[in-house]
Amino acid sequence: MSFFVTPQSMSFDAPLQLQSGAQLRGYALTYETYGQLNAGRDNAVLICHALNASHHVAGSYEGQDRSEGWWDNMIGPGKPVDTNRFFVIGINNLGSCFGSTGPMDTNPDTGEVYGADFPVVTVEDWVNAQARLLDALGIEQLAAVMGGSLGGMQALSWTLQFPQRVRHAVVVASAPNLSAENIAFNEVARRAIVTDPDFFGGHFYRHGVVPKRGLRIARMIGHITYLSDDVMNDKFGRSLRTPTLPASRVSLPPAGADPARGGPAPDLRDYLYSTQDVEFQIESYLRHQGDKFSDYFDANTYLLITRALDYFDPARAYGGDLTQALARAAAKFLLVSFTTDWRFSPARSREIVKALLENRRDVSYAEIDAPHGHDAFLLEDPRYMNVVKSYFDSISRTLDGRQSTKTLENPPAGAGA
Amino acid sequence: MSFFVTPQSMSFDAPLQLQSGAQLRGYALTYETYGQLNAGRDNAVLICHALNASHHVAGSYEGQDRSEGWWDNMIGPGKPVDTNRFFVIGINNLGSCFGSTGPMDTNPDTGEVYGADFPVVTVEDWVNAQARLLDALGIEQLAAVMGGSLGGMQALSWTLQFPQRVRHAVVVASAPNLSAENIAFNEVARRAIVTDPDFFGGHFYRHGVVPKRGLRIARMIGHITYLSDDVMNDKFGRSLRTPTLPASRVSLPPAGADPARGGPAPDLRDYLYSTQDVEFQIESYLRHQGDKFSDYFDANTYLLITRALDYFDPARAYGGDLTQALARAAAKFLLVSFTTDWRFSPARSREIVKALLENRRDVSYAEIDAPHGHDAFLLEDPRYMNVVKSYFDSISRTLDGRQSTKTLENPPAGAGA
Repeated sequence: MSFFVTPQSMSFDAPLQLQSGAQLRGYALTYETYGQLNAGRDNAVLICHALNASHHVAGSYEGQDRSEGWWDNMIGPGKPVDTNRFFVIGINNLGSCFGSTGPMDTNPDTGEVYGADFPVVTVEDWVNAQARLLDALGIEQLAAVMGGSLGGMQALSWTLQFPQRVRHAVVVASAPNLSAENIAFNEVARRAIVTDPDFFGGHFYRHGVVPKRGLRIARMIGHITYLSDDVMNDKFGRSLRTPTLPASRVSLPPAGADPARGGPAPDLRDYLYSTQDVEFQIESYLRHQGDKFSDYFDANTYLLITRALDYFDPARAYGGDLTQALARAAAKFLLVSFTTDWRFSPARSREIVKALLENRRDVSYAEIDAPHGHDAFLLEDPRYMNVVKSYFDSISRTLDGRQSTKTLENPPAGAGA
Repeated sequence: MSFFVTPQSMSFDAPLQLQSGAQLRGYALTYETYGQLNAGRDNAVLICHALNASHHVAGSYEGQDRSEGWWDNMIGPGKPVDTNRFFVIGINNLGSCFGSTGPMDTNPDTGEVYGADFPVVTVEDWVNAQARLLDALGIEQLAAVMGGSLGGMQALSWTLQFPQRVRHAVVVASAPNLSAENIAFNEVARRAIVTDPDFFGGHFYRHGVVPKRGLRIARMIGHITYLSDDVMNDKFGRSLRTPTLPASRVSLPPAGADPARGGPAPDLRDYLYSTQDVEFQIESYLRHQGDKFSDYFDANTYLLITRALDYFDPARAYGGDLTQALARAAAKFLLVSFTTDWRFSPARSREIVKALLENRRDVSYAEIDAPHGHDAFLLEDPRYMNVVKSYFDSISRTLDGRQSTKTLENPPAGAGA
């Protein structure tokens, strides 16, 4: 049983200067906190989210079944990031569709919903916005900033933008920038959304429609890149559709325990011989994922977040020299990668490790032999969990002993710097 | 300078029984031939095409610049498959949009264009149709059947469906079936087409439109899987758009000659900070490929051909046992794979090699260390060309010495078996 949490929101009145040159005035950030800030205010851990996730990192919402946060296996009382010792903050990024100011909100300059007019935001912009929330919460320095995938890019960027405010950075299944192939997948997903006739140039809200076709395709593409070829073969192989189950009830079978068997046994039923009906289980699974996603995710947010991924490239200002780019970082680092992750392969994490070592930074690196591909960073794996647990245990031994016994007072509203 | 060729067509009146149970009555196959059939009629080589290719394998069309066939570097006078010695046949498959009967033709049962009503065709159906063309051409046995990717699947299927009619099979960059990931990519492409509002359930011809949005997305996805991550990084890296060139003039830069340099030099211009404009060169390239494809390829054909790929699985009838499935094959084999091909990886070719060896068949196998990914099978690579050349040289030494000196007479029209 998980613990109950409640999302909070904080408004900021001071304009936020964005990397693009645009300004965002008047915005709100949605966040959650778990555990208690100690008296020394040195036990705060910021969790940065990836593409389609949110501030709801851990715990559950009272009265809502299956409402566990997306990293609930990692964060909570007695978990690797132990909320009995750490004050953990989950934050929703600007441009998202889960509470923080984004394309579905009203543009104060026009009185209209932003839609496609929401300014392009970057990883660096997100980190600047996150820093203001920490200011308002009275947290000068983070014990750690942590994230997976795009969240790992934010953690890395924290160490460069605010080197003195981060003691540790935990960067999981991430990369120092996107490869051409990564950008290519993002671009196809964006084109699917933008060319959906229901997109209306990003102002579909006015028309009372949602570009669901495009969102479905985008999500299906994404899902393929989150899984390894091996785990797809183990879980689905060439198994045929299951006509007795409606598509909405098709759930992911358990991870293949015996890859040597080569996945599910061959399905000897006749083919349907159809180009449009579901023939293989992998098709049901992808369609179901696409349908679910198109019901809750905002199309403009998808464009913004994939672009933030594309743009992230701290070495760019240094002529591509990542070692120079990371020279500013003062934090200690834990990097984790997964062997079958072909979206952000271990080689990409090793680029970061190498650049940090060349700067004589304190770096731990774990390459976890896991079958699940990129998704492994969200899944239960004892070796992975132990690596993170050990790292946070060692951080906790350095914390101020005067553990706070009362809940932190609510910060003043509108406390933007 | 290439040689000139002219496509031919042959009509078949006898119905073709399809694997699905449907029948195709009255159909035509478009094909080309290069070189001359010898007096012993034992020097014929059939080339099977992959997804978006055609019967136009080699040579050029008179008066049309840049009209070389898709395997012109491989096939022609003095080339690895030497048309001075071999009589080479390129054939367009049923269901295609390049001349052989397909969804754009009239259904004789209804008098309407087939559209989505064109029956699902399989690799096995294609091979059966190809065999009838050979009957009509008076070719009892092929010196070799050869193909890459989906074409390789047809070559393999020839050795199982007509073991006595094939002396050699050359199977390049292929696989014994699609993996779940392969099917997944096909399915996303199909969904993009089918959910395009201009698809009209596959009867878009009646509406005077083409589901170009879907075709573009399908092609973009395909292109990503044809290239290796490395070659994409070498050719495009994170280079920014070239605003002085219209997208239609963006051409593929030459293959990166020096991967150690890590691809193009960093582009230090400012980002545009846009989610919809082209920012990176890889985006221009993909959009251009998508646009070109949507101008010439038929959406129903795309669905049919990707489904033929999905369905191919000779081991299926043997409970997944490929060794048993290939026991029927009597041909000698050359298999070729490419190290960076992640669509049909070398491991997939090795599955075929292993199954053939377990049947004590005569198999040559070359794993070419090439950077280009799946596309390598279409590209110039001296090691690859030499392997194929040596193999065909050895075949040619076994041919009947009585080389024909005159052009083969045109076969009688309507010569379906």
